[in-house]
Amino acid sequence: MNGAQALLRTLAEAGVQVCFTNPGTSEMHFVAALDEVPRMRAVLTLFEGVATGAADGYARMAGHPAATLLHLGPGLGNGLANLHNAAKGGSGVVNIVGDHATYHAGYDAPLQSDIATAARNVSGWVRTSRTTAGLPADAVEAVAVASGPPGQVATLILPADVSWDDGAQPAPPAEPAKPAQVDQAVVRRLAAVLDGGERTGLLLGGRALRERGLVAAARLAAARGVRVLAETFPARLERGAGLPGVDRLAYLAEFATAQLAGLDDLILVDAKDPVSFFAYPGKPSRLAPDGCRVHRLTGGPDDVPATLEALVEAAGATGAAPQLRQPATPELPSGPLSARAVCQAVGALLPPGAIISDEAQTSGIFLAEATAGAPRHDVLCLTGGSIGQGLPVAVGAAVACPDRPVIALEADGSALYTFQALWTMARENLNVTVVLFNNRSYAVLNMELDRVGAGSPGPRARAQLDLSEPPVDFVALASGLGVPASRPETAEELVADLRRALAEPGPHLIEAVVEPIF
Amino acid sequence: MNGAQALLRTLAEAGVQVCFTNPGTSEMHFVAALDEVPRMRAVLTLFEGVATGAADGYARMAGHPAATLLHLGPGLGNGLANLHNAAKGGSGVVNIVGDHATYHAGYDAPLQSDIATAARNVSGWVRTSRTTAGLPADAVEAVAVASGPPGQVATLILPADVSWDDGAQPAPPAEPAKPAQVDQAVVRRLAAVLDGGERTGLLLGGRALRERGLVAAARLAAARGVRVLAETFPARLERGAGLPGVDRLAYLAEFATAQLAGLDDLILVDAKDPVSFFAYPGKPSRLAPDGCRVHRLTGGPDDVPATLEALVEAAGATGAAPQLRQPATPELPSGPLSARAVCQAVGALLPPGAIISDEAQTSGIFLAEATAGAPRHDVLCLTGGSIGQGLPVAVGAAVACPDRPVIALEADGSALYTFQALWTMARENLNVTVVLFNNRSYAVLNMELDRVGAGSPGPRARAQLDLSEPPVDFVALASGLGVPASRPETAEELVADLRRALAEPGPHLIEAVVEPIF
Repeated sequence: MNGAQALLRTLAEAGVQVCFTNPGTSEMHFVAALDEVPRMRAVLTLFEGVATGAADGYARMAGHPAATLLHLGPGLGNGLANLHNAAKGGSGVVNIVGDHATYHAGYDAPLQSDIATAARNVSGWVRTSRTTAGLPADAVEAVAVASGPPGQVATLILPADVSWDDGAQPAPPAEPAKPAQVDQAVVRRLAAVLDGGERTGLLLGGRALRERGLVAAARLAAARGVRVLAETFPARLERGAGLPGVDRLAYLAEFATAQLAGLDDLILVDAKDPVSFFAYPGKPSRLAPDGCRVHRLTGGPDDVPATLEALVEAAGATGAAPQLRQPATPELPSGPLSARAVCQAVGALLPPGAIISDEAQTSGIFLAEATAGAPRHDVLCLTGGSIGQGLPVAVGAAVACPDRPVIALEADGSALYTFQALWTMARENLNVTVVLFNNRSYAVLNMELDRVGAGSPGPRARAQLDLSEPPVDFVALASGLGVPASRPETAEELVADLRRALAEPGPHLIEAVVEPIF
Repeated sequence: MNGAQALLRTLAEAGVQVCFTNPGTSEMHFVAALDEVPRMRAVLTLFEGVATGAADGYARMAGHPAATLLHLGPGLGNGLANLHNAAKGGSGVVNIVGDHATYHAGYDAPLQSDIATAARNVSGWVRTSRTTAGLPADAVEAVAVASGPPGQVATLILPADVSWDDGAQPAPPAEPAKPAQVDQAVVRRLAAVLDGGERTGLLLGGRALRERGLVAAARLAAARGVRVLAETFPARLERGAGLPGVDRLAYLAEFATAQLAGLDDLILVDAKDPVSFFAYPGKPSRLAPDGCRVHRLTGGPDDVPATLEALVEAAGATGAAPQLRQPATPELPSGPLSARAVCQAVGALLPPGAIISDEAQTSGIFLAEATAGAPRHDVLCLTGGSIGQGLPVAVGAAVACPDRPVIALEADGSALYTFQALWTMARENLNVTVVLFNNRSYAVLNMELDRVGAGSPGPRARAQLDLSEPPVDFVALASGLGVPASRPETAEELVADLRRALAEPGPHLIEAVVEPIF
């Protein structure tokens, strides 16, 4: 069989059975092989950033990687922003980039470029497969690297002739990686740090933000009084009634500093030493208080929840009862539409098992409170700060979890980077409800313009943050891409539209025109 | 003054007075400085690929570079595909990428990445400006590199603190580069090659495809019988009645090989040794016949038209009369809509001085013939093969030439990569008429699937090339972004809509639903 056929069989056998695609000529043998390997589901996207963001969302919810299929260096370029987000969030992606035939590369054809260099920034592993016979083994290695732990972007560059030549055999999957053993010495040392009580903080990130990690941390809070926080933008946070609640570190450094004030020790649990999202003149980059000792409990290749549970045991807190969120939902909003009213409606109507892809930016600041006691759900955040992630991640989450409702909370400015995701939602009939907060501005930048001390901005500066001329009609955009859409005018209409969208299968978009918060 | 203010003054003084932007927090001082430097026009885009493609289109028509303003590594990532096209086409771009403050870079904040590495692929020059005092001089160097000849992408990485710190002074512009002297030895040597008559070819590219180069080549054709061809996808080709016509080398290698058949010598005039766009199994990458000698007359830093004129003189052809295209326009089409009918309508109605941004792909194959005798116009092609270029290039061309009508001929698949360009057309009230060929497929790939020998594709492979489920409604998309749009059903309606769009100022979109050619 040819290289492409062996590659697809190898991937499918290794559990990579979804591929988010935007192919071109050099990928045509991969495309042709899809009919030979029906276990591989190919999900077409109109733009590579949708493909890579969908692979990210898929990995977060499925717990194992999907593949992408991109077209040479420029296709990779279009996918880089969401690969950046995936890499920062620890999502595994088997990132397949087609290339010219090996012998064609020296001729500087129009699409020739150095793909490996462009991939390096976002990839834990980059390889150009040079022979058809060796391709399946390369694919096995890519899947292993992508699967982790921790998940990484593994970029496999696939020259067209390696794909089309005959002589390949599928390779068997690798043994799943075993997480590193719990380091009991570190656990014992940090158990002593817990004596600081409320002057000790636990910062949870990554894989610590699922039920096991949250419960373990909540036991430590109950038994020892330690302060538990979550990183600002988790890849996946389990939340809602019946789970321990956890406050996320604020995006604004001023508030984050207040959350961390008074700590003598901060223990990192699959999280990074917290730093300000951006730099601001005269303000420190690190957020922990001066003199606070920062300790790393676990991360990287570790079994994160097992390590946290070992700390619970070492601290004698196994029997402590974690404080759990009680069911509580906000009242249904009424009256004029506002960002707060929309968040309340989401909190009031959130169905059990929902997956929230949260890229609502400033309009979403009421969301955490409004959904704290909602039925149990997952929240997927903007891990790497590159906007245009929310809609693609929703695509991937819906493909990974076809039985769970997905709700994408989107800001207008962010949505417009990767709006093409709507078409894939329609094509695949994905059960995604997009709630589009349209405040007709890059509202966060209005705030940041002031915070970076850029003085009193004039009209030309303000115009750079303004999206009202012309106003974007998201109902028209969604309709143009095959997604039914509405624009409620009041909170009551919004509630009715949201109920309907959640009740009907397939994608919907609800545009809420709201005032900026800032 | 602060770094940003000095940077903007330096750029404006050096003739860079347009900046295509998509800023974020780290660029807020640049944005704030816009009110201090009114000579700099900032054109906001919703997506970085629009900004970089617009800078490309601007450079092609203005003959000098515009700047971009992008947000860190992911913003650059989103702009890479159209920077690739700009680099391949020799368009100068002063590509400004904001970065974290220098002291913040070590903290691995979410948006931290290695911008310089990602930029290298597409940039002839990359520099991170490390001090506020040194920033203006860096900007002068960036403008010089971008201006060429040849034009290049010069990437200036701008840390936030270098922007906001005080103590900068604007730098004076550099002396314009003088093109290299004509190499008379090469000219004399190649004048002898012209003795081959029709067995000698001239392949014109880049700066040879403007009036002076075309006339010079046409004199050689008239005097010596040499075969004149143009590269496949010129950055800017002057055409129409009163100019010498020139056939472009075909995209399909089979046809290109036929165009070059029988040549003993091929002289490259600011063009590359022609190669197949993609590799195909069992087919050669190079297109010139075996044994054909390939010579380079001029390119790079040379004065290209002057060198070509020197060849005319050396060949004693100065007095030869070039054959010029006579005015001739196709009849107005009638009856059912088809790609051919649309091309005929464009040819029949093309206004004098029009700029055509051609990304019509397969649907545009009738265009060259239909517009050959139209009033004089420029055609801007897809230089680097990365689709999603046509609409952004139209934005840039319209900003560069506000008094000339711009017509963007777009394929549906290509348009959907950077459709956000429509919003900038509306916001800036640019005089662009978009004619959208919607054949509801990646039609070129249907052809390529066969040409690469991928066998008889099954339904799953075909589905990867199909854009009909759901069909994209471009009238809705355009309306959603503020551009008036129509969907004529017949050729007569198309003609009426095209007349109206060309007569009215501001942007319009006309969606033509047509059958695929292949």
